[in-house]
Amino acid sequence: MSSLARTLEAIGPPPAEAASAAQRHLDTLTKPPASLGRLEMLATRLVALRGAPPSVERPVVFTFAADHGVVAEDVSAYPPSVTAQMVENFLRGGAAVNVLARQAGARVVVADFGVASPVGGDDLVRCSLGAGTANIARGPAMTRAQAERGIEAGIRLADEAIAAGADLVATGEMGIGNTTTAAAIIAAVTGAPPATVTGRGTGVDVAGWRRKVDVVHRALAVNRPDARDGLDVLAKVGGFEVAGLVGVILAGAARRVPVALDGFIAGAAALVAALLAPDAVHAMFAAHRSAEPGHDVALSHLRLVPYLDLALRLGEGTGAVLFIHLARAAARIYTDMATFKSAGVDGPA
Amino acid sequence: MSSLARTLEAIGPPPAEAASAAQRHLDTLTKPPASLGRLEMLATRLVALRGAPPSVERPVVFTFAADHGVVAEDVSAYPPSVTAQMVENFLRGGAAVNVLARQAGARVVVADFGVASPVGGDDLVRCSLGAGTANIARGPAMTRAQAERGIEAGIRLADEAIAAGADLVATGEMGIGNTTTAAAIIAAVTGAPPATVTGRGTGVDVAGWRRKVDVVHRALAVNRPDARDGLDVLAKVGGFEVAGLVGVILAGAARRVPVALDGFIAGAAALVAALLAPDAVHAMFAAHRSAEPGHDVALSHLRLVPYLDLALRLGEGTGAVLFIHLARAAARIYTDMATFKSAGVDGPA
Repeated sequence: MSSLARTLEAIGPPPAEAASAAQRHLDTLTKPPASLGRLEMLATRLVALRGAPPSVERPVVFTFAADHGVVAEDVSAYPPSVTAQMVENFLRGGAAVNVLARQAGARVVVADFGVASPVGGDDLVRCSLGAGTANIARGPAMTRAQAERGIEAGIRLADEAIAAGADLVATGEMGIGNTTTAAAIIAAVTGAPPATVTGRGTGVDVAGWRRKVDVVHRALAVNRPDARDGLDVLAKVGGFEVAGLVGVILAGAARRVPVALDGFIAGAAALVAALLAPDAVHAMFAAHRSAEPGHDVALSHLRLVPYLDLALRLGEGTGAVLFIHLARAAARIYTDMATFKSAGVDGPA
Repeated sequence: MSSLARTLEAIGPPPAEAASAAQRHLDTLTKPPASLGRLEMLATRLVALRGAPPSVERPVVFTFAADHGVVAEDVSAYPPSVTAQMVENFLRGGAAVNVLARQAGARVVVADFGVASPVGGDDLVRCSLGAGTANIARGPAMTRAQAERGIEAGIRLADEAIAAGADLVATGEMGIGNTTTAAAIIAAVTGAPPATVTGRGTGVDVAGWRRKVDVVHRALAVNRPDARDGLDVLAKVGGFEVAGLVGVILAGAARRVPVALDGFIAGAAALVAALLAPDAVHAMFAAHRSAEPGHDVALSHLRLVPYLDLALRLGEGTGAVLFIHLARAAARIYTDMATFKSAGVDGPA
């Protein structure tokens, strides 16, 4: 049995009673019932997933990088050379995700899933599936075998981290052109019109946006991805780093470790993961609402409500890492607060 | 000259060019311009206020407690004994604000501004203005002299903390009955109808909510607070802990230290502070949008947009402390990220 098949088999719903038992514990703590709002709902989801008091003390963010053949269609404000340059920046600790991860006490795993130019560094994890995907406007991004290999590499990296103690995994990515890829995945899975799910990415102008919408239309028309088959969608209009993130999400769900989804690209990966294993959604936490308009379409399809709403549109895992503070707060509220009884505080009159 | 007068005199607007200079620096960092959304706007506000690169490394949260004579009108779900019991809980570190402050690396200053029952503990700061306010439904909460003394005590505590290195001050409070007080202040200052600004507080039922609305009506009719005179509003329909928080806000504004406003009660204190010194708003950061409906009325009046939206309605400073993570993230992005030049990353094509 492949590691993908084994992982999919391990994914199921949390026990039916877990969330209400968690809420009963929260109601014994020295605060009016439900007065910590969504933080309490977050805590109950963490408890239900884990089947034990929650802990968010050793988070790991997976920042996977790859290039996209669709950049040939002039869909990005930045040249493709930036993918490799940013990988070097991640390895030196100078990017936004590094700064925010240091603050949150999160380890950053930087992996090459298919950067087109040579990239170096001892700390770079090598999982390259090729020198960038093929151009989705003209044919499939990759083979089905490549898509599977990418997912399995993501599973392996997340499994290793979880075995070493990671208690939350977060998705991050870098890939010039990948908002076009993500828009194509989201349109393919949800059926939403390309113009609805395509945004300005790193900052293209209106003409650039029109080109992106046209490219997504062509990618769907040329490839005809099957909306019921996650591997088919991923192989035809996906990206190498997206495949890796699908693996991270599935591994988290299988090991009952919370998965903090970053923004738009993560939303696309989550849709693919949910096609492969619908119960994976129980492990998914939508960290924030991206400024990319298509993100909401993906989250609504997954019935996830984001926790932060800060108009972020950077990626790398930055929003997911900001969310770690909230997840840790929810966990510590659950485990560290005094109860009415222990503190000798009167209940309602 | 009184410490209040001196503090008010020191409050002014930030230099006109400061925010745009800060944005220019952010645009040199290795990310698409403005791609960190509200985090970047938060950073520019911190820089403009401080007149220097921002730092949120030594935050202090002021959790001020007092009782409210208006509880005689049966406006709270909890008995007034809970105010003192929760003070003991704060001092033992078992309350939600303690748990969240430990996570955020924030010091909690717990002060008695007028708790009705005896409270103890070496770590309790003693600033009591009396054994709870008088019942605002029947007359003024306190004298104008008490209101001034309360503000000056808050200024003194915040000044001491800032002199000792605090680089962000956060407001917190505890006082059974204080959502009724805050609703009265917000109605008095903004002119909004009592039913619009009165909420369920710690969880009263519909009949309790109707009583609260009626009490706010009576408090305004009996006291006729002058909406142009912050001290008059505070003395007539305010609370002792609210007076202290007004002092904290004014001291932060005068010393150019950011003030993280917690929720509904903090919004009322902020309205009073802005009446006394309109430029104090430049130091105010609305940490979150409370589940109390009147909070939005206060924030709109101050033209502040909250950063978090988690349906919190606990108070104590919990929302303000959660915001510290975002403020620190904004500060570190500003100071710690690599630039396009230093990292050798190409700009837009």
